Amino acid sequence: MKQRAVVLLSGGLDSATCAFEVQAAGYAIHALTVAYGQRHSRELVAAQRIAESVGATEHKVVQLDLTLWGGSALTDASIGVPTQGVSGGIPSTYVPARNTIFLGLALGWAEVLDAEAIYIGVNDIDYSGYPDCRPEFIAAFQRVVELATRRTVEGGRIEIKTPLQELSKVQIVRRARELGVPIDETWSCYMGGETPCGVCDSCRLREEALAAAGG
Amino acid sequence: MKQRAVVLLSGGLDSATCAFEVQAAGYAIHALTVAYGQRHSRELVAAQRIAESVGATEHKVVQLDLTLWGGSALTDASIGVPTQGVSGGIPSTYVPARNTIFLGLALGWAEVLDAEAIYIGVNDIDYSGYPDCRPEFIAAFQRVVELATRRTVEGGRIEIKTPLQELSKVQIVRRARELGVPIDETWSCYMGGETPCGVCDSCRLREEALAAAGG
Repeated sequence: MKQRAVVLLSGGLDSATCAFEVQAAGYAIHALTVAYGQRHSRELVAAQRIAESVGATEHKVVQLDLTLWGGSALTDASIGVPTQGVSGGIPSTYVPARNTIFLGLALGWAEVLDAEAIYIGVNDIDYSGYPDCRPEFIAAFQRVVELATRRTVEGGRIEIKTPLQELSKVQIVRRARELGVPIDETWSCYMGGETPCGVCDSCRLREEALAAAGG
Repeated sequence: MKQRAVVLLSGGLDSATCAFEVQAAGYAIHALTVAYGQRHSRELVAAQRIAESVGATEHKVVQLDLTLWGGSALTDASIGVPTQGVSGGIPSTYVPARNTIFLGLALGWAEVLDAEAIYIGVNDIDYSGYPDCRPEFIAAFQRVVELATRRTVEGGRIEIKTPLQELSKVQIVRRARELGVPIDETWSCYMGGETPCGVCDSCRLREEALAAAGG
């Protein structure tokens, strides 16, 4: 039987590429998507399609309403999504503790599945604005994993894997193409529209990378 | 203005006592309860009453269905709650990654509130069966907090506080009485009944402690 991995799948380019890395690594894929009240709920449709494309063994969508406290342009309609281009600092699209919460959920499911890995598509070369996408955050969370669960305290291992961590956005696009990711099915735009806005940070980074990676 | 604290409030004796410690420490209390599909959903009613008793500034109940993957006697109706008395090892009532998930949620809200503390009523003197109630787990999570959020990477602090960590169950009962916790309003039983079963681990520990602490 294949080893199992839980994969956090938002439906964006990064998480889709990450899911195809998991396929290439030979794991049975247990895809986890969180419907957290995100402005760009269109990405949930993309997540479903990517889960099918990558041949996930199963795909669970957890409902968790983070608009209860908001605090981000993605979870509070009164906070605008920046459209002036990427700047320094932590942008308003940062969602408080999102990856901590998502990795916690993935950890719970991984333990129940006896999965040995959790994959997350974080990367911080081209866009280091989110504190919880940095390798030092992942390393700290790995330590939590080692102390938090029955599986790990009884000598088993659950490893958080971040295959995109060291890649630039252009490198992610190239890797996505190598792996056969259906890039057109992924959804990156932070806005809630039917078509990508083209001006939010996520659209800009994606389009620049697609252009730079060539056709 | 009072400093703010997020308090994880299940409705049990420990979290109620913890909430009253937060009151005694002078914080504005932002109580957080998670309706996670727990077998003993009766505790949610208790949480509401305790939030009122302790004078919480606000009380939020997050819906998060952990029965999606189960893996615990509290989240899977097909797994029995032990009734033979406390034994060694990790019991079937352990919920995979529960405190990791709950602390992640508390962290998100704490950041939005500019709260400086998160309180959780973990203790492991009389019942060390849950890995995520141990001080080494809390210390590891504190390190995650320091790396995960805008507030902490910009030099602020969010501290996880565990005032019950070193207390035995009898000491918790005594402290609850000192603080004026309405103990009869709290709910500890793991079963789903209208009255406490008296034989699950949680009932046994509570009743032994109440008896030992005297009237």
